[in-house]
Amino acid sequence: MAHINLPEGFPGIRGPMQFSPATTKPMRELAEALLHAPNTLTPGEREIIATYVSFQNDCYYCQSCHGSTAAHHLGGDFKLIDDVKRDFHGAAISEKLKALLIIAGKVQQSGKRVKAEDIERARDRGATDKEIHDTVLIAAAFCMYNRYVDGLATWAPRDPEVYRAIGEKTARDGYLRPAGEEPVDAKF
Amino acid sequence: MAHINLPEGFPGIRGPMQFSPATTKPMRELAEALLHAPNTLTPGEREIIATYVSFQNDCYYCQSCHGSTAAHHLGGDFKLIDDVKRDFHGAAISEKLKALLIIAGKVQQSGKRVKAEDIERARDRGATDKEIHDTVLIAAAFCMYNRYVDGLATWAPRDPEVYRAIGEKTARDGYLRPAGEEPVDAKF
Repeated sequence: MAHINLPEGFPGIRGPMQFSPATTKPMRELAEALLHAPNTLTPGEREIIATYVSFQNDCYYCQSCHGSTAAHHLGGDFKLIDDVKRDFHGAAISEKLKALLIIAGKVQQSGKRVKAEDIERARDRGATDKEIHDTVLIAAAFCMYNRYVDGLATWAPRDPEVYRAIGEKTARDGYLRPAGEEPVDAKF
Repeated sequence: MAHINLPEGFPGIRGPMQFSPATTKPMRELAEALLHAPNTLTPGEREIIATYVSFQNDCYYCQSCHGSTAAHHLGGDFKLIDDVKRDFHGAAISEKLKALLIIAGKVQQSGKRVKAEDIERARDRGATDKEIHDTVLIAAAFCMYNRYVDGLATWAPRDPEVYRAIGEKTARDGYLRPAGEEPVDAKF
């Protein structure tokens, strides 16, 4: 049971998002800008960064939603997402994305852990300043989203089909919702 | 020197905020909703929560800006802010705010650290569900802002007068900026 009285039946972040529309609007807009809006990093790459940070923060709901969204962006490749979680150094992703994941993993611990050599490595592998900026902010933002979800002890479904449905919809439609209020079908 | 090429002369978060207007808009709106918009927690109380989390995350820029903003909301009481940082249990703040700071301190470490007894203690001392929600989200959000500032190795002035000016302006005007773009005077 969640720590506070949230609308029933909304998993993970969707419970507190229903509870607090005033903060939900900017949180949705930030996710859209970071993960779904046009960018030289693909949506799949950005969702992998979000998934990896959520995995490091041990947030079951977020790593499942964003892992599924990443997989849907990548043609349904759920195995790749598992490989990234287990050991991204050996996963079938670009050397640039590996360098960005090293930065994201350090941000997850503390911003101060990111060192000049981490940035140099990413640049050597082709990352631009904007891609480094976006990686740092995606990692930082998921340190927020993950804590919001777990700090309120929200409910996370265990049925993988729920996350498949969420990932498919999110990969297609992104994070914005038209009216500013959460829709009643926000369960998936 | 910052890890990426940021506009010169903008301290702390203001450098990356100039760099990335698309993410700055929702980040400003979130700060406004959490810290400055009408709430049963006073702006001073909410800025104290933000300051305490930034202090725990060892983010010099954020703890200085928000500590100063809190002090300005509280009639210039900078000593109280130092007391909260040193040992909030002994500081001249309400028992309710102390219970909320216990929750915020746990969120800073990990959302999962927040336990039912922490919530009960806050409720016993008069906290509402919305105040508990807002405390969790303020703490979570500063785990983002702090990492954004330090993960990019931004520049933090050491002159206390800079933070006095920032705190005075922020306490008065809040976090929103009219045009969606960062103003050229965003240094303070």
